[in-house]
Amino acid sequence: MVPAAVPDWSGRLRQLQQELLAGTLDAVVVSTPANIGYLTGFTGTAGLLVVTRDRPSLLVDGRYDAAARDAMARGALATLEIAPVPAGYAEALTALLDRLAAVRIGFEAGHVTVATLDDWRAKFSGRDWVRTDRLVEDLRIRKDAVELACLRRGARQLSEVAGRLGEFVKAGAREIDVARAIDRALEAAGFSGPAFTTIVASGPNSALPHARPTSRQLRSGDLVLLDFGGVLDGYCTDLTRMAAISRLGEDAHRLFRAVFDAEAAAIDAVRPGVSAASVDGAARQVLVDRGYGAAFLHATGHGLGLEVHEAPRLGRAVGDEASEVLAEGMVFTVEPGAYVAGLGGVRIEDDVLVTATGVEVLTTASRDLLIV
Amino acid sequence: MVPAAVPDWSGRLRQLQQELLAGTLDAVVVSTPANIGYLTGFTGTAGLLVVTRDRPSLLVDGRYDAAARDAMARGALATLEIAPVPAGYAEALTALLDRLAAVRIGFEAGHVTVATLDDWRAKFSGRDWVRTDRLVEDLRIRKDAVELACLRRGARQLSEVAGRLGEFVKAGAREIDVARAIDRALEAAGFSGPAFTTIVASGPNSALPHARPTSRQLRSGDLVLLDFGGVLDGYCTDLTRMAAISRLGEDAHRLFRAVFDAEAAAIDAVRPGVSAASVDGAARQVLVDRGYGAAFLHATGHGLGLEVHEAPRLGRAVGDEASEVLAEGMVFTVEPGAYVAGLGGVRIEDDVLVTATGVEVLTTASRDLLIV
Repeated sequence: MVPAAVPDWSGRLRQLQQELLAGTLDAVVVSTPANIGYLTGFTGTAGLLVVTRDRPSLLVDGRYDAAARDAMARGALATLEIAPVPAGYAEALTALLDRLAAVRIGFEAGHVTVATLDDWRAKFSGRDWVRTDRLVEDLRIRKDAVELACLRRGARQLSEVAGRLGEFVKAGAREIDVARAIDRALEAAGFSGPAFTTIVASGPNSALPHARPTSRQLRSGDLVLLDFGGVLDGYCTDLTRMAAISRLGEDAHRLFRAVFDAEAAAIDAVRPGVSAASVDGAARQVLVDRGYGAAFLHATGHGLGLEVHEAPRLGRAVGDEASEVLAEGMVFTVEPGAYVAGLGGVRIEDDVLVTATGVEVLTTASRDLLIV
Repeated sequence: MVPAAVPDWSGRLRQLQQELLAGTLDAVVVSTPANIGYLTGFTGTAGLLVVTRDRPSLLVDGRYDAAARDAMARGALATLEIAPVPAGYAEALTALLDRLAAVRIGFEAGHVTVATLDDWRAKFSGRDWVRTDRLVEDLRIRKDAVELACLRRGARQLSEVAGRLGEFVKAGAREIDVARAIDRALEAAGFSGPAFTTIVASGPNSALPHARPTSRQLRSGDLVLLDFGGVLDGYCTDLTRMAAISRLGEDAHRLFRAVFDAEAAAIDAVRPGVSAASVDGAARQVLVDRGYGAAFLHATGHGLGLEVHEAPRLGRAVGDEASEVLAEGMVFTVEPGAYVAGLGGVRIEDDVLVTATGVEVLTTASRDLLIV
């Protein structure tokens, strides 16, 4: 589906070409589907984009050739050369790079497998294959106006779906039925599909951060974790809310309040110039102070965009990797959680945008515990 | 969900360990999710399985730790060591391989990215990282009795959904609504979800092999291509049928008949000992003979199992790769197609099993053109 406003593919391609002009690569092979989509609008499941300093070429096999030409004619694809793939992609890539006289060729180390690189190397003797990292991801990490419009609209629609949770969450309902009702509501709200498999985890299952919906029926005293997202014009949003079935024990209320406060502290910490790790630290500190430090089993958040998990990652610094510094235009989730066996789990998640001076929370649904 | 019969994980792990015993590797790191699932029953989105000659260890981070222990207690996970991942996976992998005193370590070249291998190499100086290819995929390619039971049941249920297409395909209906009705029918039939995004492509859209459902309304004279599949107990099935809205031109009927006959010829060619390419050749020859050789834009089929696209691939031999030889227990799709701009496209797809002496067609729905 073509978004209301057409993305500036030629501007994005130019940015990548600026990188090439500043370096020593003759060409870069873009293989990550979301990167190809970002630069060109192409959304097939196969394809390779080859960008030189002065021209982009899209290699697509016969399954996508007609669709790509048609999309370009309709303005739903960047203006570029469409190169055919009569046999395998590696063969077509050789032929194209020969034609472009490219010798130093960049590839995406975070996507290309060892087997694929070995194959390319074997077929292109005499060429230099040069590892690149986050060349396109670094362009994608700060969203432009067209992307922000999609993400804002998506977050608003997702919040409306969250406002309907009271219709679906009921004592006696099975987790899987609640999940399906949420999926229907996502469709009805205009999303092209869920951004990931909807999570509905009740009672003991809520203590498993990545539980899948089961046939367990919701019952009195349950904490119910509801984590869902939708894709709108290609962009992903993601939200988690908590419900309780009638009465909840004091321990569960205390757990909910701790995560609620941890999320608020993390959102409060978001502004340009601070590290992603410091946002994670703000949430973690609240949970440590309340005695749930060991119960926070994951990072505080992840970037949102064409992928439901993309840069930046908001977690503790791991090994020697530097933590990302937040910058205006970044969009990510803030979703601390605490999971206690025998009691249950709580996670609360919103989508936020780093603004010039601080933070804008894109998801607007009430974060209060939904008591049904 | 635990399948009715529990897979023989320990037997599968032993087969992999036999490979290790026959070679020079101290350990193999299994990273492909479907391979981990096949060997252990673990279905999380993150995790690494490390197999030495005498023990399997599963590295999982905090999000999956409790769920994995719980699954093992319930018999829904292989008996193995669960090793924690307190910080990053690479760090935990180092610690584990140290403890196991592994020096020559195999990795899955078709899954591990260049960036990941570089990272592992940097963290494990003094160790040999050895490329492996299809170590587990070659075990997965011939289905065992538990897998065949899942695939047979899935194919039967999918055929029942195909029998309901007449309820959904109607003049005036939008492609997207027909696709959603099929998704509902998959749910109602007991599938845990669709195996891929359901394709409903009508009129000119049917000429695009990988079209996505749009808001186009079906109208008189349309060819309608319906391609859908379901996941049952983790196993994928996949089916394509054709419908026509009231009257269809003579050209379209001729196209349908050619693909119908091509599929029958390909299925007829399936038996143990023949090459996958020869099955593709049988379909292709029929289409060439009828003048549609250039309109057949993809391979004839792909393996089915824990992944919706797995080995074997039934296509023309590409480059220097040898074509797979078919063997008893392989399950794959047979799905020739022909796509003619201005006229439309036809694809007919069934799921078949290679038996000791020939072929068993698992999907039983009528292949006739559904005229509505």
